Amino acid sequence: MSTQPERKLRYAMVGGGRDAFIGSVHRRAMALDGQMELVAGALSSNPDKARASGRDLGLSPERNHGRWEDLLADELTRPVEERIDFVSIVTPNHVHFPVAKAFAAAGIHVVCDKPLVHTRAQADELVRTVEQTGVVFGVTYNYTGYPMVREARELVRRGVLGELRKVVVEYNQGWLATHVEGQGNKQAGWRTDPERSGAAGAIGDIGSHAENLAATVTGLELEAICADLGALVPGRRLDDDASLLLRWRGGVRGVLTASQIAAGVENDLRLRVFGSAGSLDWRQENPNELVHAPLDGPKRILTRGSPWLSESSRRACRVPSGHPEAFIEAFANVYLGVAADIRARLAGVAADPLAADYPRLADGVRGVRFIEKTVESAASKLKWTPMA
Amino acid sequence: MSTQPERKLRYAMVGGGRDAFIGSVHRRAMALDGQMELVAGALSSNPDKARASGRDLGLSPERNHGRWEDLLADELTRPVEERIDFVSIVTPNHVHFPVAKAFAAAGIHVVCDKPLVHTRAQADELVRTVEQTGVVFGVTYNYTGYPMVREARELVRRGVLGELRKVVVEYNQGWLATHVEGQGNKQAGWRTDPERSGAAGAIGDIGSHAENLAATVTGLELEAICADLGALVPGRRLDDDASLLLRWRGGVRGVLTASQIAAGVENDLRLRVFGSAGSLDWRQENPNELVHAPLDGPKRILTRGSPWLSESSRRACRVPSGHPEAFIEAFANVYLGVAADIRARLAGVAADPLAADYPRLADGVRGVRFIEKTVESAASKLKWTPMA
Amino acid sequence: MSTQPERKLRYAMVGGGRDAFIGSVHRRAMALDGQMELVAGALSSNPDKARASGRDLGLSPERNHGRWEDLLADELTRPVEERIDFVSIVTPNHVHFPVAKAFAAAGIHVVCDKPLVHTRAQADELVRTVEQTGVVFGVTYNYTGYPMVREARELVRRGVLGELRKVVVEYNQGWLATHVEGQGNKQAGWRTDPERSGAAGAIGDIGSHAENLAATVTGLELEAICADLGALVPGRRLDDDASLLLRWRGGVRGVLTASQIAAGVENDLRLRVFGSAGSLDWRQENPNELVHAPLDGPKRILTRGSPWLSESSRRACRVPSGHPEAFIEAFANVYLGVAADIRARLAGVAADPLAADYPRLADGVRGVRFIEKTVESAASKLKWTPMA
Amino acid sequence: MSTQPERKLRYAMVGGGRDAFIGSVHRRAMALDGQMELVAGALSSNPDKARASGRDLGLSPERNHGRWEDLLADELTRPVEERIDFVSIVTPNHVHFPVAKAFAAAGIHVVCDKPLVHTRAQADELVRTVEQTGVVFGVTYNYTGYPMVREARELVRRGVLGELRKVVVEYNQGWLATHVEGQGNKQAGWRTDPERSGAAGAIGDIGSHAENLAATVTGLELEAICADLGALVPGRRLDDDASLLLRWRGGVRGVLTASQIAAGVENDLRLRVFGSAGSLDWRQENPNELVHAPLDGPKRILTRGSPWLSESSRRACRVPSGHPEAFIEAFANVYLGVAADIRARLAGVAADPLAADYPRLADGVRGVRFIEKTVESAASKLKWTPMA
Repeated sequence: MSTQPERKLRYAMVGGGRDAFIGSVHRRAMALDGQMELVAGALSSNPDKARASGRDLGLSPERNHGRWEDLLADELTRPVEERIDFVSIVTPNHVHFPVAKAFAAAGIHVVCDKPLVHTRAQADELVRTVEQTGVVFGVTYNYTGYPMVREARELVRRGVLGELRKVVVEYNQGWLATHVEGQGNKQAGWRTDPERSGAAGAIGDIGSHAENLAATVTGLELEAICADLGALVPGRRLDDDASLLLRWRGGVRGVLTASQIAAGVENDLRLRVFGSAGSLDWRQENPNELVHAPLDGPKRILTRGSPWLSESSRRACRVPSGHPEAFIEAFANVYLGVAADIRARLAGVAADPLAADYPRLADGVRGVRFIEKTVESAASKLKWTPMA
Repeated sequence: MSTQPERKLRYAMVGGGRDAFIGSVHRRAMALDGQMELVAGALSSNPDKARASGRDLGLSPERNHGRWEDLLADELTRPVEERIDFVSIVTPNHVHFPVAKAFAAAGIHVVCDKPLVHTRAQADELVRTVEQTGVVFGVTYNYTGYPMVREARELVRRGVLGELRKVVVEYNQGWLATHVEGQGNKQAGWRTDPERSGAAGAIGDIGSHAENLAATVTGLELEAICADLGALVPGRRLDDDASLLLRWRGGVRGVLTASQIAAGVENDLRLRVFGSAGSLDWRQENPNELVHAPLDGPKRILTRGSPWLSESSRRACRVPSGHPEAFIEAFANVYLGVAADIRARLAGVAADPLAADYPRLADGVRGVRFIEKTVESAASKLKWTPMA
Repeated sequence: MSTQPERKLRYAMVGGGRDAFIGSVHRRAMALDGQMELVAGALSSNPDKARASGRDLGLSPERNHGRWEDLLADELTRPVEERIDFVSIVTPNHVHFPVAKAFAAAGIHVVCDKPLVHTRAQADELVRTVEQTGVVFGVTYNYTGYPMVREARELVRRGVLGELRKVVVEYNQGWLATHVEGQGNKQAGWRTDPERSGAAGAIGDIGSHAENLAATVTGLELEAICADLGALVPGRRLDDDASLLLRWRGGVRGVLTASQIAAGVENDLRLRVFGSAGSLDWRQENPNELVHAPLDGPKRILTRGSPWLSESSRRACRVPSGHPEAFIEAFANVYLGVAADIRARLAGVAADPLAADYPRLADGVRGVRFIEKTVESAASKLKWTPMA
Repeated sequence: MSTQPERKLRYAMVGGGRDAFIGSVHRRAMALDGQMELVAGALSSNPDKARASGRDLGLSPERNHGRWEDLLADELTRPVEERIDFVSIVTPNHVHFPVAKAFAAAGIHVVCDKPLVHTRAQADELVRTVEQTGVVFGVTYNYTGYPMVREARELVRRGVLGELRKVVVEYNQGWLATHVEGQGNKQAGWRTDPERSGAAGAIGDIGSHAENLAATVTGLELEAICADLGALVPGRRLDDDASLLLRWRGGVRGVLTASQIAAGVENDLRLRVFGSAGSLDWRQENPNELVHAPLDGPKRILTRGSPWLSESSRRACRVPSGHPEAFIEAFANVYLGVAADIRARLAGVAADPLAADYPRLADGVRGVRFIEKTVESAASKLKWTPMA
């Protein structure tokens, strides 16, 4: 990491107040490298809680808002040299759309959590807005920020695996193996509620990460899917288990599974890519390693920070190999990518593509379509061949 | 392992001559515990090669046959105290049916390799024959012989996982990632030839192991499947890659994958079972461990031979924990199970179920149906939801 | 992590300028949780480089110094509400002593990198100074900040392992396997130079981490040692490989190895503790796991963030289990501990011991003695029994 | 494995009767490949038990002896074409010497368990006897039979690691973590009894394996040692924990640890070899893998049976890679090596060195010296530098 830029980017946060899990992750990710500072916020849909949360974080009273609409209005009154450079949206899913649309329409750069929005119509509308104002728009598919994911993407691009043949991606968690939403778990509450989470449960919450990871690393495009969704915990209203057969363009096969009822499993996102000349295997719970198994030699354990890795991967590192980096650092890499793009805009230059490396609006839109199509496919019974 | 029995069981082998891979594995498995001896054989479909192979193994000339029909005829002329106790059939798949049927019809106990036969009609006919003569009939789904697979089965039976919810089984190999059948590889030759291997390639060769492992451990019955089969290596005539969505009776979901084009992977058979109270994870390449992840505590690494394992698992061990046992030992356990059943017959007593623990004819029949249904399901295009 | 404190602690940094590796780690660790801000510095022994480095970091010109003496003098002129709360010393080893002594003597809290100083005389003098002024003094034995190290310490304290019997700690790196100090590597340069690194090479640089980790987790005190030190790379002036037999008080045995010529190894710090009732195993390269092997049951894989862990361990976490935390987060935990102690002083209350959990001056002093005694022991030839 | 030899080698066993653990391992190892058959025995020092054990194994009454002296006398009366080809000695340690000497003196080939004998005087006498009669003499350092150990040896020989610098070998077990010898455990009983086990406990039982593994793989010779031995379980009469600093000829450093009080550990023999160009890491509990970490590239996971391994390693395999082989197979490889040497003698030809690959008498003699010197070194107190 070379010389530091001259000033920190200023950001506001919408959502992420007291008791929220992911808001503090975003803030830590932005704080880590000393390139961004929180200057304003509307940190909860509950105005009192929003302001209390802002006080915890040291926001000045005049930029600590109870409603995001007030935050936006206030920022637009401020001079550019004081105004936020971007907004970070970390609310429950159903709030993403109005906030993202309003800030983008106002010409403010946006980072929005995933899944982007609930419907393709919303996604399309957001695309139109962003096309009009030309703002930077990042989506925090945070797993793509891991250096070894970037190495995997690079190895595929270079053809090290030969022709791709099969892509297997799985994301297993166990935290919804019981009906915790009935026991006051807030995270579970909104994720299993169709009003706030959309038509999809596990497939939206974590299946979308799996889809994005596979697509990012392979560069492939899905052609068709065949999905099985289940709400396996009694009383649950949205799917908590998903299994899909995949057909990628070019005849590549695939399997995607996403489950939140995998009892005893923590956060096991794993991607395997098989090609004619070798395969790759990466697991989020051991993120500093990438296993490359060539067809004609022993497995190679590629490790973060090694000098023989690609520049794309090495630039995503802060400490030498053997000194592990993890979840927050990967998250921070996504924000660094957005920041590089914003800084390039501020400087009026083209962004360095190796620096401005982050999931774009198009990733978010594709994710929305993936979720919709999965729900549609799961509704069809024609797929099944009875064994009897 | 307690006191040794008074005499070795005598067996003949059909198939398994020079250059065959699996025949020598069967013979070593039978030799390991000193309970069985090879006394006769018809070791190849090529009579000259058969006899040469028999000479290598020290068969006496009068019991070293060029054709299996001669072997059977000769054995039937011998007095019972000299006659083989059972036949082991290790030919390519298409020969299983006539040999198994003939020996079973003649009242000789049979051990037959998997997949059992090519068609359900053949399977049904074999069942009728065995019902008539009442012979012992084992099928060498050898992976069920691993002590930790038996522990997994026992844990499921005892309800340690609670209600089962999802079963994920995968079997990946890479040895068919190139067109080796076009380069003189004999093993690949018959496995990719519809005449000798049946309508299925990878799904028959290794998918059947995956199905059997999952069904054995969970005790579940498949209700419906949705299959995608591909012949991904150019020029290949049978599937080399299979992915299936599974529905087990009782609402249990599942995924089965079997691939022989997983470049760089060796023999990665893995089973995961998820229940309401925990999960299990077992991998054949690390067979002495079984990971049990309970819902409410840390993962436990169960290891072969530990005193806290079930009797079923401990009886399948020869050496203390930490002294690994592996593929051949597991294979031998299947044969020990068959031998216990045969010895019980010889003694006129009921077999000890913990000793006579081996895959039965019903397993083989179910496997044939599974393969047929998979091929049928794969032919249907209705399953796919296009992404466009 | 509960409500945020009202203001950030202000700190100055000595050392850690451009090209330094560890300075940016310290800064990121302090930035991560939003509780500390860099306000002043003397970032290099080279005044020009010091100031350039401060500009990179956005220091205001009047607090961006070329010499640490100027930094200290300037701070002492400032009003308390503006003055730094503490100094972070991240220079090469030989500079630790004068800086730490001067700031401590001036009543400013200190965080100093390890190994603390070069000699026991210096250590003793530092102790006297700190006793006089009563400042908070932390030493960045950063590996003790890992949540699973804290869990290990807690399990030992609770007696889960029974009576301790053997402690094996090893720290292997490979980056000095060639004569990189002769090829312009700055990190290697000062670490292999007796003037700047002291009488010890690997044993000081990483052996001291191993000693501290073992002592911290077990609470044991070394009674006697028997050391073998080698400078195995031709031309090297300080040891790059160390192996020690250990005797801890109470009859506990031990082995400590530290090597920087372990070619192909990255940063493999591992601690194993064996007691009468079980053992623990922790590896820094996989820091989110702690293996607990009880005498009478299967191995348990304890993972960071699990609800069944001790409060000491859980409070050191930022994200849920399965979302790995790593090197920088552990480093940050050491600083959070120091900050909790400083805040308690500022508030005039006793610090919460679970919060003010960090390596103290006594750890640093013990480390200096360990290094001195190791060098002394290694000089003795009496230990060897010839094989001939 | 090519064409089978024309006849099985005939062997007798001394020791290994009912309740013995290791005797059945030796018999299974010899049975596995169908190249050896048990024809005679004196299976216990208790004549009744000896004969009962022989009956279990189907020995004919006239070759089933109560005393080993009778076995030897009887064999010498038999014609060569019926006489045993070799004797396998699997008694407790104190019986090795008289039996081995008597059979070797009588011109019968010998396989003897380790540690060979109790004293260097006995070892020297055995060497003289073997020199006189020229018999084949193998010592069952069984871990050297693992294919990946042979690969490690080959990689060192080829210079893949460059100049060797450090060798770390450790062997940890936990089964003696409690005073099981006081609770009727027969295996523990003789191993912890100076009368039957010699002057050394853990260092003799498993430390000797560690020494042999390190010496076999590296080809290095020990120059000097510095040992710490402890009997850490109250009431134990022999060491159950050993830690040694090693100096190998040529300036190579090393550490050897052997412990039987490593609670919760099973049979964790591990060897690491560090050279100027890379390192190797092998663990017996995961024996099908060998990790090779080159200085200048990613770690390579070498796996048993891979086509790119050395012929020495590949010839020690029975099944393809991914189908694990384990403890008994490795043991069998040692016996196959002895058998190849005996067959070459019978044929009057020079043995193929790749086939006749087994630990020799010299290995056993070196092991005896190692144990003696370790006990001597441990008695010296001069090694310790007090910390106070």
